[in-house]
Amino acid sequence: MRVGTMAVDGATTAIVAVSDAQAAIVDGYPDVAALIAGGEDARAAIAAAVARGPRVPVPDVEWLPPVLRPGKVLAIALNNSANPDRIMRGPDRPAGFIKPSSSLIGSGRPIRLKEAYGRVHPEPELAVVIGAGGADIPESDAYAHVFGYTIINDLTSPTMREFDTFHYRAIHPDPAAPDGIAYVDSWVSYPARYKGADTFGPIGPWVVTADEIPDPHALRITCVHDGRLITDDDTGNLRFSVAEVISYMSETMTLEPGDVIAMGTALKKSATGGAVQNVDLTALGGTVEVSIEGIGTLSNPVERR
Amino acid sequence: MRVGTMAVDGATTAIVAVSDAQAAIVDGYPDVAALIAGGEDARAAIAAAVARGPRVPVPDVEWLPPVLRPGKVLAIALNNSANPDRIMRGPDRPAGFIKPSSSLIGSGRPIRLKEAYGRVHPEPELAVVIGAGGADIPESDAYAHVFGYTIINDLTSPTMREFDTFHYRAIHPDPAAPDGIAYVDSWVSYPARYKGADTFGPIGPWVVTADEIPDPHALRITCVHDGRLITDDDTGNLRFSVAEVISYMSETMTLEPGDVIAMGTALKKSATGGAVQNVDLTALGGTVEVSIEGIGTLSNPVERR
Repeated sequence: MRVGTMAVDGATTAIVAVSDAQAAIVDGYPDVAALIAGGEDARAAIAAAVARGPRVPVPDVEWLPPVLRPGKVLAIALNNSANPDRIMRGPDRPAGFIKPSSSLIGSGRPIRLKEAYGRVHPEPELAVVIGAGGADIPESDAYAHVFGYTIINDLTSPTMREFDTFHYRAIHPDPAAPDGIAYVDSWVSYPARYKGADTFGPIGPWVVTADEIPDPHALRITCVHDGRLITDDDTGNLRFSVAEVISYMSETMTLEPGDVIAMGTALKKSATGGAVQNVDLTALGGTVEVSIEGIGTLSNPVERR
Repeated sequence: MRVGTMAVDGATTAIVAVSDAQAAIVDGYPDVAALIAGGEDARAAIAAAVARGPRVPVPDVEWLPPVLRPGKVLAIALNNSANPDRIMRGPDRPAGFIKPSSSLIGSGRPIRLKEAYGRVHPEPELAVVIGAGGADIPESDAYAHVFGYTIINDLTSPTMREFDTFHYRAIHPDPAAPDGIAYVDSWVSYPARYKGADTFGPIGPWVVTADEIPDPHALRITCVHDGRLITDDDTGNLRFSVAEVISYMSETMTLEPGDVIAMGTALKKSATGGAVQNVDLTALGGTVEVSIEGIGTLSNPVERR
C-alpha cells in the first residue's frame, strides 16, 4: 500500500494510491501520521477510500511531507559501506543528527536556495517511517516498529558545515583536582543550518508500507540531476541496517509514531556522472530526482532566491 | 503573565499563575502552544481562568514541557562571552543544533541516565519561546516574535560527544577537474545522542510572557546541584543576543509559533563550586536546579537506570 499527504483547498489530506495513475482521498485523516495513529479505524478508512473515495489523478497531486510534522527526523551520518575507507577516527556504531520538521517539503515543491548558503548538494537516502513507538527495541523486533519506507533528499551545505565547525578547547573535569578543570583540544560541528535550512528536506512522494518491502536492503537507489544519472547505488550498501539503527538509536532516544529515520547517503557514483558533491545546486539550479525501487521518485526543482 | 502545561487525569492542560502559590486551569487549551495559536480567544480564556478557573496549588502541579511538542528546539552553541578565549577556530555568528522534542521533560520529572551514557553534565540556559513565526526577521523586529521566556537544562554527554565525532576525509569537488573529487581532512560531530537522549531536555516550569521581561540580558542565572551553587552567571554574558540569534537563524530556518531557542550555556562558576562539567550526574545522581531571575526554578532529580 502506498499512502501520502496532499494539499487541498488550504487544508491537507491523506491519500492512498489506487493505481500508478490515481489516488483516493482518505477522508478525515489530514496526513500519514494520522493514519498511523488511527490504527484499525484508519485501515478501514483506507479500504473505504480505495473502494469509493474521491479520486485525484496522481500528476495533479500537490505533495506535502507524508508526515507533516514528525516528532523527529533522525538522520544517520556516514552510513554507506564505502565510508569507512575515508574515516580516520569515528564510532563503529551509527551516529546522527536531527533535521527540523520546518526543513521538510513534498515532492514537486521547490528547493529554495540563497547565494549565502554557498555550495548545496543532494544526498539520496532511504527513509524509515516509524509505526509503533518504543525504546530499547531489540534488533530482532525492530521491523515490527516500521510503518513503511519513503525517500528523503538530505540536502547539505558543505559551506555552512565548514563555517559552523569549531576547533576549541573543551572544558573537562581535571581528574587530578577535585572541582578543577582541564582543557581538551576538540572539534565540534553544528548541523542546524547546514542540514536544517528551509527546503533542505524533500521527502516522499509516497510511503510504501513495510509489508510491500520485504527487504529494505535490496533496493536500487538513484539520484538524477537535470536528466543526468549521478548516483546509482543499492540500499544493500548501507553499513548499518535498518534493524541495527532502530535498535541502537532507541537505546538513547524513544522512537515515536511518525518519526522519520534517514538512513544515510547512497554514495556510489554512476559510471558516467560525478559525485553528488559535484552537483552544486546553488550554482547549477535544475531539478533533482531521487528514486528508490518499489517506492517511487522524489522530484524537486531548484529555485534561487 | 506566567503560563505552563500540566498533566491531569491522563490528559494535559495549560495553566496560568494566579499567585506564587496558585495556578488556574485554562480550559480547552492542552498546552502553551495552543495558547500561542489561540490568539485573542486564548487571551480571553486566560483572563477567565484567572477570574474564576479551577485552582491548583503550584506545589501539586505535575509539570510538562510548556510546549509539549515544539516544531524545533534550536540550541545555540558556545554562546557565552567567556567562550571566545577557548575557540581557536569557529564562526563569528551563532551556530546551533536541534534537540528532538522526545528529549523534553517538565520540571520535577526525573532525568533518567544509563551507565552507558558515560559522563552527563547540566547546562543552564535561557530559552526563548517563539510567538509569531517568520523568516528573514530583521534584528529590529526580533522581539515582536518572542512569546516569552523559560528555562532549559541542555543536558550533555561529553562521552557520547567524543564517541560520535568523526575525523575523516570529506568528499569535495575537485576545482581542477570537472566531475572530479578531492578529499579534505575534516572533523564532524553528530549531536543526536549526546544532546538528544531521552530526558536530556528539562524545560520550564513557567513561560513568562515577554512583556514581563523587558530586558532578557539582565537576568541572574544559577545552577545548583544538591544544594551546592555551581553556576552563578548573568544573561548579560550571552555573546549573541536574543535579537541577533532570532534574526540570523531565521535567515536559513523559518521560526514557527511554539519553537524553542535555547540560548547557550551560562558558564560563570560560583565563587565556591566547580564548573558544570565537574557535575557528572551519571556518577553523582542528585537533583539539579536551574533558576533564572523573574522566571523561576527548573528542578529535576536524577534517576539511574
